Amino acid sequence: MPYVNIKVTKENGGLTKEEKLTLIKGVTNLLAETLNKNPASTVVVIDEIDMDNYGLGAEQISDRRKAGK
Amino acid sequence: MPYVNIKVTKENGGLTKEEKLTLIKGVTNLLAETLNKNPASTVVVIDEIDMDNYGLGAEQISDRRKAGK
Amino acid sequence: MPYVNIKVTKENGGLTKEEKLTLIKGVTNLLAETLNKNPASTVVVIDEIDMDNYGLGAEQISDRRKAGK
Amino acid sequence: MPYVNIKVTKENGGLTKEEKLTLIKGVTNLLAETLNKNPASTVVVIDEIDMDNYGLGAEQISDRRKAGK
Amino acid sequence: MPYVNIKVTKENGGLTKEEKLTLIKGVTNLLAETLNKNPASTVVVIDEIDMDNYGLGAEQISDRRKAGK
Amino acid sequence: MPYVNIKVTKENGGLTKEEKLTLIKGVTNLLAETLNKNPASTVVVIDEIDMDNYGLGAEQISDRRKAGK
Repeated sequence: MPYVNIKVTKENGGLTKEEKLTLIKGVTNLLAETLNKNPASTVVVIDEIDMDNYGLGAEQISDRRKAGK
Repeated sequence: MPYVNIKVTKENGGLTKEEKLTLIKGVTNLLAETLNKNPASTVVVIDEIDMDNYGLGAEQISDRRKAGK
Repeated sequence: MPYVNIKVTKENGGLTKEEKLTLIKGVTNLLAETLNKNPASTVVVIDEIDMDNYGLGAEQISDRRKAGK
Repeated sequence: MPYVNIKVTKENGGLTKEEKLTLIKGVTNLLAETLNKNPASTVVVIDEIDMDNYGLGAEQISDRRKAGK
Repeated sequence: MPYVNIKVTKENGGLTKEEKLTLIKGVTNLLAETLNKNPASTVVVIDEIDMDNYGLGAEQISDRRKAGK
Repeated sequence: MPYVNIKVTKENGGLTKEEKLTLIKGVTNLLAETLNKNPASTVVVIDEIDMDNYGLGAEQISDRRKAGK
């Protein structure tokens, strides 16, 4: 029954379908093992965010990447 | 004044404008009727999520659809 | 499979259990009727927000209520 | 360490990179000045929402714009 | 830099501090291993939701628990 | 019409009513000045998160504070 939302920047064309599945399975298993939550009703939503729309340290990730951060 | 966020998968080209309006009106009315909330300031945001990015039961919705679930 | 989050202010002791159920059923039915979504896996989460923590029109809802808005 | 999510409609081609940076810097500074939060770990995510997917007053923003609201 | 939000019901007094840490570490590691994301700036927020406020299958989790689901 | 959600840890008894108002006004003004958004329908929701429930760098904020971070 848990709900999980993962927000990451969209870089190099975005996540592959396999990477998304790895995240979905990984989080679902973590909740089952840690809290005994039912995997069948665990929901995971992945949001891929444009690098200009994601700020950290008062900078856009797009600019941080250019600066090698 | 309530805020509502609806997340659904984007299937078959996505929701039509009319379907979105039906959701917006339906939720706004529900909050007005149930809790006497002011429709004028009720906000509803609909997120359409790629089927690869939405997980249920440790599977992507895209794969569940292929499997007939 | 949809996920819905409803945020309302906590007023007069908060929503009753019955009001919460009315919201959960209402939203779940709306998504089933409008988009043919499966009620069995529809998730609805209601957040009750302290009136000091909810702003509209650059004011806290607590102050708007005192002003009769 | 704070996390901030800003949702605005996508109008006239969307926000420019500079507008996004202004929002990211402005929110990060506000949290540093008001609550002494560390700018280096403050995260800001901006979501640009299609005008058909954003409802206010039981109407879509796309229709409100057409009506001059 | 990723942001993750986990919503689970508050049952039996809520999660222990150790369970919360297990979730935080587990998700942070998953993102580092799968996407090479920097653990130092990965944010995880856990929301514990009252069982009356969490709906699944048009029912409150509180009632599902009473029914043995 | 924008919607903004601010998540900060609850420390030393939590934010004062005045601090919350400063955040609400500051964000509302920022959106009005930067994007010409209408303050009257701008919504700001502040979530105060228990320090055990907020993770950064694979640690709970409660433990980071004890370690002087």
